[in-house]
Amino acid sequence: MSNSMELPRPLEGIIPPIVTPLLGVDELDAAGAERLVEHVLAGGVHGLFVLGTTGEAPSLSHDLRKQFVAQVCRQVANRVPILVGITDTSFAESVSMAQAAADAGAQALVLAPPYYFMADQPELLEYVTHLVSRLPLPLFIYNMPALTKSVFQPNTVAKLAELEQVVGIKDSSANMIYYHQLRRVFRQREDFTILVGPDELMAESVLLGGHGGVNGGANMFPTLYVELFNAARTRDIARVAQLHEIVIDIASTIYRVGHHGSSLIKGIKTALSLMGICSDFVAEPFHRFRSAERNQVARLLDEIREKLRACGIAQP
Amino acid sequence: MSNSMELPRPLEGIIPPIVTPLLGVDELDAAGAERLVEHVLAGGVHGLFVLGTTGEAPSLSHDLRKQFVAQVCRQVANRVPILVGITDTSFAESVSMAQAAADAGAQALVLAPPYYFMADQPELLEYVTHLVSRLPLPLFIYNMPALTKSVFQPNTVAKLAELEQVVGIKDSSANMIYYHQLRRVFRQREDFTILVGPDELMAESVLLGGHGGVNGGANMFPTLYVELFNAARTRDIARVAQLHEIVIDIASTIYRVGHHGSSLIKGIKTALSLMGICSDFVAEPFHRFRSAERNQVARLLDEIREKLRACGIAQP
Amino acid sequence: MSNSMELPRPLEGIIPPIVTPLLGVDELDAAGAERLVEHVLAGGVHGLFVLGTTGEAPSLSHDLRKQFVAQVCRQVANRVPILVGITDTSFAESVSMAQAAADAGAQALVLAPPYYFMADQPELLEYVTHLVSRLPLPLFIYNMPALTKSVFQPNTVAKLAELEQVVGIKDSSANMIYYHQLRRVFRQREDFTILVGPDELMAESVLLGGHGGVNGGANMFPTLYVELFNAARTRDIARVAQLHEIVIDIASTIYRVGHHGSSLIKGIKTALSLMGICSDFVAEPFHRFRSAERNQVARLLDEIREKLRACGIAQP
Amino acid sequence: MSNSMELPRPLEGIIPPIVTPLLGVDELDAAGAERLVEHVLAGGVHGLFVLGTTGEAPSLSHDLRKQFVAQVCRQVANRVPILVGITDTSFAESVSMAQAAADAGAQALVLAPPYYFMADQPELLEYVTHLVSRLPLPLFIYNMPALTKSVFQPNTVAKLAELEQVVGIKDSSANMIYYHQLRRVFRQREDFTILVGPDELMAESVLLGGHGGVNGGANMFPTLYVELFNAARTRDIARVAQLHEIVIDIASTIYRVGHHGSSLIKGIKTALSLMGICSDFVAEPFHRFRSAERNQVARLLDEIREKLRACGIAQP
Repeated sequence: MSNSMELPRPLEGIIPPIVTPLLGVDELDAAGAERLVEHVLAGGVHGLFVLGTTGEAPSLSHDLRKQFVAQVCRQVANRVPILVGITDTSFAESVSMAQAAADAGAQALVLAPPYYFMADQPELLEYVTHLVSRLPLPLFIYNMPALTKSVFQPNTVAKLAELEQVVGIKDSSANMIYYHQLRRVFRQREDFTILVGPDELMAESVLLGGHGGVNGGANMFPTLYVELFNAARTRDIARVAQLHEIVIDIASTIYRVGHHGSSLIKGIKTALSLMGICSDFVAEPFHRFRSAERNQVARLLDEIREKLRACGIAQP
Repeated sequence: MSNSMELPRPLEGIIPPIVTPLLGVDELDAAGAERLVEHVLAGGVHGLFVLGTTGEAPSLSHDLRKQFVAQVCRQVANRVPILVGITDTSFAESVSMAQAAADAGAQALVLAPPYYFMADQPELLEYVTHLVSRLPLPLFIYNMPALTKSVFQPNTVAKLAELEQVVGIKDSSANMIYYHQLRRVFRQREDFTILVGPDELMAESVLLGGHGGVNGGANMFPTLYVELFNAARTRDIARVAQLHEIVIDIASTIYRVGHHGSSLIKGIKTALSLMGICSDFVAEPFHRFRSAERNQVARLLDEIREKLRACGIAQP
Repeated sequence: MSNSMELPRPLEGIIPPIVTPLLGVDELDAAGAERLVEHVLAGGVHGLFVLGTTGEAPSLSHDLRKQFVAQVCRQVANRVPILVGITDTSFAESVSMAQAAADAGAQALVLAPPYYFMADQPELLEYVTHLVSRLPLPLFIYNMPALTKSVFQPNTVAKLAELEQVVGIKDSSANMIYYHQLRRVFRQREDFTILVGPDELMAESVLLGGHGGVNGGANMFPTLYVELFNAARTRDIARVAQLHEIVIDIASTIYRVGHHGSSLIKGIKTALSLMGICSDFVAEPFHRFRSAERNQVARLLDEIREKLRACGIAQP
Repeated sequence: MSNSMELPRPLEGIIPPIVTPLLGVDELDAAGAERLVEHVLAGGVHGLFVLGTTGEAPSLSHDLRKQFVAQVCRQVANRVPILVGITDTSFAESVSMAQAAADAGAQALVLAPPYYFMADQPELLEYVTHLVSRLPLPLFIYNMPALTKSVFQPNTVAKLAELEQVVGIKDSSANMIYYHQLRRVFRQREDFTILVGPDELMAESVLLGGHGGVNGGANMFPTLYVELFNAARTRDIARVAQLHEIVIDIASTIYRVGHHGSSLIKGIKTALSLMGICSDFVAEPFHRFRSAERNQVARLLDEIREKLRACGIAQP
């Protein structure tokens, strides 16, 4: 697949971090993946992020990761830009994944810090600089301190942004003070993309000038997130308030079923399974919901759909 | 290489977590590795732990990891048992590494929790149980919460120890209250091995009944750690106090050069380089010491050697 | 002073957490305090919060705290409602402070969890319930986990809000996901006040329906925060964006002078001193800025004032 | 009461952090306190620590704290040295408490960092230096980062130890690596006392040269801790191992009843109540065990007593 699509600078809109549909350990749900991609594209999303946290990338074998990227790129065929996560504790594996993404026809790469050892800022700066010189595609920085333990400080991001290939950041810190500091550093760089991760924070970030969201909920309800983005972009606050409430409802219900912190991914995959889109198999160290939790997700899903209908949100 | 060596139950003594000598990103220092292995074996160690934290395993490509395990197993040729780290965020990669370790002739495997997502105790229990059923060798649990974010609670370890293949634990929590709780859970199971990680805690753990240590400093000074272990085992407290002081000196000097938390691995590799054993190349996201820090390590190394001589510790 | 003023339900607007001007350890800067109160009232603020974190309450003796509350209440004379912090590790001291606040004529009390021991949610619930039965005034819950270590979970706040005297919450968690969960819990309770602490988050919280801010920067620039609140309330996004930028500038410069986490309070007190309002003495364990840092604050203050002028913000 | 007793340098042995017996909020159980003091003195302890964490000092009013110190000093009448906690978020209140302790005839003071704001090392150093100049008695530093959030780094302790009045440290970090670093800093200062807090770590710290323990369990079983200290001091490892097991049993059972982190204090007070020594009332924000937990403590207490008898530990 030739990479004939230009990456917008900045990249604006909703870029769902798509789940990786699985049939078993190390076995892709290829048909489910195909349905998932068409489902979110039908919702009007502005790009796809493959192999992120919601995509369970670290839990997958490198072979399966490459297989999934290849399938998605082939299917999307430049309809929207594709961003591919290359985060890895091993430099060599990140380079290898980046090459596979370029070969498949992706438009950009996404990199969080190596997540076993904690690197200090000068170390991170040197690491990313080394890595970028080996990468065939533009790079988004991915700030995800809750899981990687290392944060990209705003000053470090500013230095990295001097590298031509570093084109943006996805901030999943859930820390809006950090986010505003970051925006301050890039006030004069409107080409540098700043996206936020948690669903709950997309509306306010866009209202105050952010470029969009990489929101897990857009796997299930792409139209909702796209319409919320548009309302925030056009400063239709009444509509923002209305749709933001549903986003908070989703995050407060479907993402919180069961007893474990892993309920976000389990909740999304279960909902997608109930919607007939793909399998609910979850990669180790997690495991799909048992029937009690699945039934609970089914009920919550009905409630959310009812609210969406009441707000006139068509579902793809 | 046939696996003709029996793994002692419990495994007692000093099992150095050997560094992985490197010439560059994804390039093994094979000659250095050979010298390193003979160096620690000459010090009388009771086993080797390959691909642990000190071995920078997560920073290495899977291919390089397998190559290193194969070389070490071939060289050791059953002189001591070899434990191989299979910790990975991907279940499939852990299984693959375990098979490679068995093929190479290793005696046991070592597993910390997947270190991207945080799993709760029931999830960890299910995960390890699933994994063990796919493993060709006995398994040591590896508790390393500072880097993995997930802890193996003593009750979870007790449940895992009911699996025949789970034979011991390496506790690198640096939390002696946790260690004593663990020992309490296994009071009636003298076959279940309990080893501690941090150099600084080996003496007291063995004095109070522990089985030994997996101590990074034994890369440099295997005899020191072996003699300290023996003194603690034979309850020669005066000797313990004398040698324990040097262990604390090492950890307070060579491990703390420079400004970053990564100084432990950098310090050990620099010292080994100064001793003519192997390269000081450090895997990304870290980088070898510059000359100022290297010179500082050289001075500290001289001081430690002087103290070792004063205590009658022969160096291999 | 009789308490003849009614507390609005909800309480909306900017309620500055005023600093406690000091001349020395345990010595109030009474004249400075008088100037400070008139300065913020002239800016149009909607209330005052005395003895909060910015007020260094925990660092002051109980006698000085009571003296300060009495002075402020006497001076304000019901022009705006006064909220008084009664947070204490000792139940008896909280009760005593509450009585002093009522005697002085304050309108409400503010309570964070006891900040030495960490209490779990059922313990916190029981604690606040016991305390409220001994309090002579309405109570705001104060969520400040970074300093108290205990969080008030949204469900706990909901249960506490069933007590008639519990009228609102000040959320200083800096966690907008928490904030949105809280708002969700109180969707049907428009009389229950929800205020946010950090300056940087006031604009977005009010845009999405919050009641206002308890913002330290309003000590220096009350008009800025009042105008930003009004712009957010009237959904004038262009004006919000313009003023929000200055708020972020303040928080990114004046609050970050020097090397320590204590720079927020030191920065505000130094700026107030440079403005001729009150002393820059800071209570132990902190100490006022030396001249290098003071000069830096002076320069930053000039920059902020220039930006305020450019935005047409009159300063009181 | 004149302070006619000399404080040993170093202070060695078991210094129980005695609980503060209470009849209600702000009401001392004076008779229970008297029985408690005689109970621990009969066990052969080497000092008393009044108003520590186990003493719930931060939860008590300042008046009650002073009343309790006065009663204990009067009763002990120089039979053993008395250390009084003066930790406070307010400098002025610490000075006031120190004066009360000196007036009552105590021998030394104990100070943890102010526990609301987090002070950095240079700030802590300046703070303690200022405070010490106002103190009428020798001072022990108290390292308790889990509750105060600030740690006294070994280098800071070394600098503070240059002040004549700073005579020792109580380390309750539960971090034996920190403890060994601290011991290293003071190798040449045998007059500087180093005591450890958690019960579980006393044995090993004394085996490796520490001076003793400030162990909550000595409220219940002073003889056990004194005999364990003596066994460690005389390097009777077999006896150490035997008694250390019971200490771990106590910490793993009586301290872990119920669901909350507050179970240590509740467990000790409940056991003391069951032993007929003092009331089980616990200060807010905690609350005494209900009957189910109380019954559980009763059963655990019986088990511990049986083990003590089997080891020949007489109970006072």
